Amino acid sequence: MAWHETELARTLGVHLPILQAPMAGGWTTPQLVAAVSEAGGLGALGAAVTPPDELREQIRAVRALTAKPFGVNLFAELPAPSLRGVQDWATAAGVPVPAVAGPAGPRLADQLAVVAQERVPVLSFTFGLVPLDGLDCVVLGTATTVAEARALQEHGVHAIVAQGSEAGGHRATFLGPVDAALIGTMALVPQVVDAVDVPVVAAGGIMDGRGIAAARALGAQGAQLGTAFLGTDEAAVPADYLAALHAPTTVTRSLTGRAARSVRTPYVDRMERSGLEPPDFPLPRLFLQERPFLAGQGGPLLRRLPAAELVRVLEREVTVALDAAAARGTVLA
Amino acid sequence: MAWHETELARTLGVHLPILQAPMAGGWTTPQLVAAVSEAGGLGALGAAVTPPDELREQIRAVRALTAKPFGVNLFAELPAPSLRGVQDWATAAGVPVPAVAGPAGPRLADQLAVVAQERVPVLSFTFGLVPLDGLDCVVLGTATTVAEARALQEHGVHAIVAQGSEAGGHRATFLGPVDAALIGTMALVPQVVDAVDVPVVAAGGIMDGRGIAAARALGAQGAQLGTAFLGTDEAAVPADYLAALHAPTTVTRSLTGRAARSVRTPYVDRMERSGLEPPDFPLPRLFLQERPFLAGQGGPLLRRLPAAELVRVLEREVTVALDAAAARGTVLA
Repeated sequence: MAWHETELARTLGVHLPILQAPMAGGWTTPQLVAAVSEAGGLGALGAAVTPPDELREQIRAVRALTAKPFGVNLFAELPAPSLRGVQDWATAAGVPVPAVAGPAGPRLADQLAVVAQERVPVLSFTFGLVPLDGLDCVVLGTATTVAEARALQEHGVHAIVAQGSEAGGHRATFLGPVDAALIGTMALVPQVVDAVDVPVVAAGGIMDGRGIAAARALGAQGAQLGTAFLGTDEAAVPADYLAALHAPTTVTRSLTGRAARSVRTPYVDRMERSGLEPPDFPLPRLFLQERPFLAGQGGPLLRRLPAAELVRVLEREVTVALDAAAARGTVLA
Repeated sequence: MAWHETELARTLGVHLPILQAPMAGGWTTPQLVAAVSEAGGLGALGAAVTPPDELREQIRAVRALTAKPFGVNLFAELPAPSLRGVQDWATAAGVPVPAVAGPAGPRLADQLAVVAQERVPVLSFTFGLVPLDGLDCVVLGTATTVAEARALQEHGVHAIVAQGSEAGGHRATFLGPVDAALIGTMALVPQVVDAVDVPVVAAGGIMDGRGIAAARALGAQGAQLGTAFLGTDEAAVPADYLAALHAPTTVTRSLTGRAARSVRTPYVDRMERSGLEPPDFPLPRLFLQERPFLAGQGGPLLRRLPAAELVRVLEREVTVALDAAAARGTVLA
């Protein structure tokens, strides 16, 4: 037995319970997703705002590159896109006002139909619960509190991603206020592990094998890394975004109307201080700012590697970290 | 070699690199400190607001109970106690106004003199840097960011406590704004480990052996637990406080004028919403509220045990957690 031989890995059908976090903004390219899966982890398309036809194309593009399991991530059912407050906000921010007659976001039912038709192996979702009828895949829900984890288990998910406060991007919180659900990964994971019977995936602040080893020690059966994969060749993230990952982050509603962890850019700072109430989420387009720098608190540990190489490095590092933790004196090969 | 045989343990002269966090409010009784140290960990008196004579008595009370190493925690030099804003605050909060002619807080120089005279084995401090001239003890500083960790190493400390955002009590932040220094333990510890050459102690959200094992996996050589020790017999924390540890926490200035993580009590909620600017820290007396419920985010994992028993349980749990993480299939004895 080795650290990666967990029930979760068996359920997902992967060699390594290392999950590439679905990320909005176009970074989870089919190339990235396929490279992670082909290397033994689980790649995932961040498809929440992807129209059904485009989602189908992306799924097929992944399949053309790997026969291994991969995932698709969607948002749980949301109200119709809103433009309330957008005009004032955009004017104050000096950003273009989204067109009032802009296209509505994709319908969840249509996205789910594609997931079912294309026989996607793994579906993960965030912001609550998605209807699971007619889906024949492994389902992961996202929780930021013990209460949410319990609700997800009750709903019938196969595993739960416990999203600690360090995590970049949107807070998955769907029960109660976001402020009361900013719980650090170190505190959240063991509480969720104790509260549910399904496997738990740790997310938030994990950038290398030390973090994955820590997640395992806390009782998680796998780890989900987002920011760490922003540095891969396949994500093709621009250099200024990668450079910004060394800066402090903050949880802000100024990017999408919903709480998300982002680099504290001048835009974020300005809008946080403006006193304006951010517009309602969701908007016809996802981001209020043209180029949001979403990131977790592990950003300064970013490495630039091809995705497959990163997965291989992570696998090795976990063993080294666990040996070092146990003071077994293993030396890095 | 075992997980606990670290350079930090050798430097501190302890069997187990498990540090009982110094806690204000009277919970770090000589009985608690001595019990933790006698069991092989490192107990510590939270003496920041303890007058020199009383500190001397407490140190001697610990010594009467154990010959093992223990620590004393102090605040770095602070401005003179202030009463600015206290009248408005106290009126709005419905709490007694601290006497304007109240006694000033103890002088750091006088406290340090007692630490030196009594040959206290370990000194830890928070809120910045203390003068180390003439001190012949092991010195630990507290950092909430990489920049603070570097400043502490430069100052000459022997080890650094990396305080993650999960931690209960005061934020130790002394460089830059507190908001930019609320970094989760999972993200903070490996960044600090990479940035300094001295041993690192992980703090924040650690409640059991899983957390200590995770801290070791992240590269920390030890772990500091505060909230976990609130449940010990020797801390003698009242039942309503212990019950409150299951509630969400928040970082608030409403208790002392300085950012601290506390249970979100009705008082905290009311004062956070009041819009009043909290008074300056430090005040003539530490807390604005009579009975503050400071706590970390791991509170729901609290156990009620004698301190020595808790230390023994923790030691065993770390081994179990590391074996489980490596999937070595060890069964709990």
